[in-house]
Amino acid sequence: MKKLINDPQDVVAEALIGIEAAHPEVRVDHTNRIIYRGDAPKAGKVGLVSGGGSGHEPLHGGYVGLGMLDAACAGEIFTSPTPDQMLEATKGVDAGNGVLHIVKNYTGDVMNFEMAAELAAAETGITVETVVVNDDVAVQDSLYTAGRRGVGVTVLLEKLVGAAAEEGRPLEDLVALAGAINNAGRSMGMALTSCTVPAAGKPTFELAEDEMELGIGIHGEPGRRRVRLASAREIAEQLLEPILADLDFTSGPVIVMLNGMGGTPLLELYLMYGEVAKIIDKAGITVARNLVGNYITSLEMAGCSVTLLRADQELIRLWDAPVSTAGLRWGI
Amino acid sequence: MKKLINDPQDVVAEALIGIEAAHPEVRVDHTNRIIYRGDAPKAGKVGLVSGGGSGHEPLHGGYVGLGMLDAACAGEIFTSPTPDQMLEATKGVDAGNGVLHIVKNYTGDVMNFEMAAELAAAETGITVETVVVNDDVAVQDSLYTAGRRGVGVTVLLEKLVGAAAEEGRPLEDLVALAGAINNAGRSMGMALTSCTVPAAGKPTFELAEDEMELGIGIHGEPGRRRVRLASAREIAEQLLEPILADLDFTSGPVIVMLNGMGGTPLLELYLMYGEVAKIIDKAGITVARNLVGNYITSLEMAGCSVTLLRADQELIRLWDAPVSTAGLRWGI
Repeated sequence: MKKLINDPQDVVAEALIGIEAAHPEVRVDHTNRIIYRGDAPKAGKVGLVSGGGSGHEPLHGGYVGLGMLDAACAGEIFTSPTPDQMLEATKGVDAGNGVLHIVKNYTGDVMNFEMAAELAAAETGITVETVVVNDDVAVQDSLYTAGRRGVGVTVLLEKLVGAAAEEGRPLEDLVALAGAINNAGRSMGMALTSCTVPAAGKPTFELAEDEMELGIGIHGEPGRRRVRLASAREIAEQLLEPILADLDFTSGPVIVMLNGMGGTPLLELYLMYGEVAKIIDKAGITVARNLVGNYITSLEMAGCSVTLLRADQELIRLWDAPVSTAGLRWGI
Repeated sequence: MKKLINDPQDVVAEALIGIEAAHPEVRVDHTNRIIYRGDAPKAGKVGLVSGGGSGHEPLHGGYVGLGMLDAACAGEIFTSPTPDQMLEATKGVDAGNGVLHIVKNYTGDVMNFEMAAELAAAETGITVETVVVNDDVAVQDSLYTAGRRGVGVTVLLEKLVGAAAEEGRPLEDLVALAGAINNAGRSMGMALTSCTVPAAGKPTFELAEDEMELGIGIHGEPGRRRVRLASAREIAEQLLEPILADLDFTSGPVIVMLNGMGGTPLLELYLMYGEVAKIIDKAGITVARNLVGNYITSLEMAGCSVTLLRADQELIRLWDAPVSTAGLRWGI
């Protein structure tokens, strides 16, 4: 295992020290492993809390800030944060307008966020609502999930709901908006290589030199099938076919994300985006906005995922609204 | 070789198609492989042209836009663009105020930009000035360079001089500013793994499982020495020691960049930044601004580099000025 770390057990704690040093605009609670907006709790707005296993950066800590999340809980690598962390974050962002939990659909995350919401209600009376993101068309159930996994749409949802929360919209509006966004988005990913969890010390899985995994999960959990390595053009087709078969994206504009898994050069991601854009165009779909880069990663895994989200004028307006986080920044 | 590509020969051309699709705000000349600001040539400002071998993205194409470059020439991977490309870019950005070439110190780049400047003077009468960036303290001469190599300071220089150009400052001012920035910055890098140039099909070099290369170049060219894999803490010391020995950074604030080589997870880069920040602090140096992420890469190489730049209030003001590019965006 070759990594820029000290002790494998200290990776998350020490990365949080670096995040604090790099970003004076956020506040880091090292005891509870929570990254807060510097001005949380922010009066007049619903608090947005997300979190999950570490190793997917910039998700979620890199999306804390104006126009996105109020707090993110960092679990161990590929391991859900605890209910206690989530409860603490919920208290830390509540300004009396309630809190929305944004949860990727993995069994551990869903259970723990549910418990945190119950504890918050019982102990503090804070109103907590939850959106569970489940946009991955690859598999119905998987190693860590009942139902579809939550992946790329989470990034777009945190941006869009974050913008709406910034405008002071009430909790029930945000719940409806988040649900609509989740229903309107689909993703599919693939891997060329595995990643290595520091505490494990060896690759999560092995792929032969001429193989790739289609429908890979962001923790390296198995996808749809292991197939022969194909060209970028064929990979783009294999990623988009199940997305386009699952939901009609031709009725209006879309936001597209071509996401790198962490170990793929930006040059290749742009090449892939060129292939994806051609297929989308041929399918009669109009791209309103796009992201190309590493937004929801799996440590140093080589590979990519594609996310499509149906976006009406209101979603595009929310997309264009100012955002100031480590991972996404514009308009400010 | 496992890559998201079609034919190894088409990687740069096809990545440019993706860049054009992703970024409607830039204009891509596919024949000459030049990325232009959408509004180039921009009246009233000096044109800034850079470029170099591809494979270092977001450098340089990702730094084209308001507040940074007017044009970037893309060479083949790790290969200088041609004088013809650079001449064409120079013509394409000149608005009558002259053009500044920003050149990383590699023999091919320096020769070709020099020839392009001569051709521009002879054919068109455009005044061209050049800054050669040579900030890498690792080695005096190397495989592709006489003198020190140009690395991380290039990113900071393109931002800072870009901001000054945007204010309408004349060419001679920008030349002086660029020279001062180059003199005030130092970098040093390291690699855990090699990268694979698509046309070569195999890793540029081999490192054993317990080895790392200190002072690596951004094309995988040899550094200072191959040593035993160390902890992040020790690596931070080994990168900073030669930087701090080469220039006094204690007299005022600095801008720090902790740059990923392309294949290192953001989590590890933040952990490394934490270590770097501790050493800098202990050395009595004040960090005014920082960047942590992949800014000047070597395809999928795992590793990082550290750049320090002495930054007075004027440089910090230019740093904070609005920038709108694929790779750096704020204030707008």
